[in-house]
Amino acid sequence: MAGPERAAAVRRSAVERRILDAAVRLFAERGFDGTSVQEVVAAAEVTKGALYHYFDSKDDLLYEIYHSLISRQLADLDRALAAGRPPAETVRAIIIELIESTAEHVDEAKVFAREMHRLDHDRMHAVRADRRRYHVRFRELVERAQRDGVFAAGASADTVTIVALGMVNQLPHWYRADGPKSAAELAEEVSAFVLAALRPAGD
Amino acid sequence: MAGPERAAAVRRSAVERRILDAAVRLFAERGFDGTSVQEVVAAAEVTKGALYHYFDSKDDLLYEIYHSLISRQLADLDRALAAGRPPAETVRAIIIELIESTAEHVDEAKVFAREMHRLDHDRMHAVRADRRRYHVRFRELVERAQRDGVFAAGASADTVTIVALGMVNQLPHWYRADGPKSAAELAEEVSAFVLAALRPAGD
Repeated sequence: MAGPERAAAVRRSAVERRILDAAVRLFAERGFDGTSVQEVVAAAEVTKGALYHYFDSKDDLLYEIYHSLISRQLADLDRALAAGRPPAETVRAIIIELIESTAEHVDEAKVFAREMHRLDHDRMHAVRADRRRYHVRFRELVERAQRDGVFAAGASADTVTIVALGMVNQLPHWYRADGPKSAAELAEEVSAFVLAALRPAGD
Repeated sequence: MAGPERAAAVRRSAVERRILDAAVRLFAERGFDGTSVQEVVAAAEVTKGALYHYFDSKDDLLYEIYHSLISRQLADLDRALAAGRPPAETVRAIIIELIESTAEHVDEAKVFAREMHRLDHDRMHAVRADRRRYHVRFRELVERAQRDGVFAAGASADTVTIVALGMVNQLPHWYRADGPKSAAELAEEVSAFVLAALRPAGD
């Protein structure tokens, strides 16, 4: 089933998770520049050797914080696309999973959004490529459904993608787990809104 | 006409603009932490005294970079709301102006999104209050139109606002003035998409 192009969620050991969680916490509190590898080691209660076994550098920690999340989201997207449901149901499933996974990892998403401009060229390139892959697959789904007349074609598939996914990318700036609406409720409303805009005229 | 609550666009002298432009450029290149007031003074070709005549501190520069933009956007919003057009036309005008002004000041918006977490408590509070004001006024417009049956009420006015404005807040991350679509074209498509989602069933 899984071709080389197929996204796979990253599996991590407990030690790796502990290191990444400590890095997220420290980067959030002190910023990326204000945090040393030594402080991450101390907060995670691991040896420096253990950290360097899993991660090359502080840049690598920042990259992996987000890489875990986008890899999982790409795997979710692939699964939704492969399920063969009608386009409206597929869009709904994708938006709901994307909002829920972003909300679940909102600290990681927030730290990354703030510090990603510190990434070196190669890692920035890798992040951009993953995001583009997500964007392109979503856009192709919309384009196909517009061509088949199942979705309204008033806005280009690219703009639909920007609006639908833009809300999700903004979520780390305002979402609170203890806010008035759960991630699941938000996800339902957002997907309903996007699908209402895609309903062909006369339906 | 203009009450005390009415937003007014900030007017600036040529010297102030030169200082702010230099600050945006340097913060974008070197980050907020990596830039000194002395470097801003040198890049703007003004005296340190001139800078401190207009701005209290480096924090103040960061705040004012965004304050200019959000003040103008609040003034645009108030004007659109006061014009008394039907809700769909008002939403369209608001989204178009918001996307165009954000695109026009995309460097300011980008620097601010990246560095805003450095703001001190009072200035952060002021920024949040301006954003909330924008959000609330837009939401009230949608709510009223939903109550009157002019807009579909499938998604709550709050979620409509988050989705419609979320795209704009994301724009600094991907918009390029030399990209395939102009800000005006994007703005047309986004407003059409939002209005399609708000079209009452059967219309």
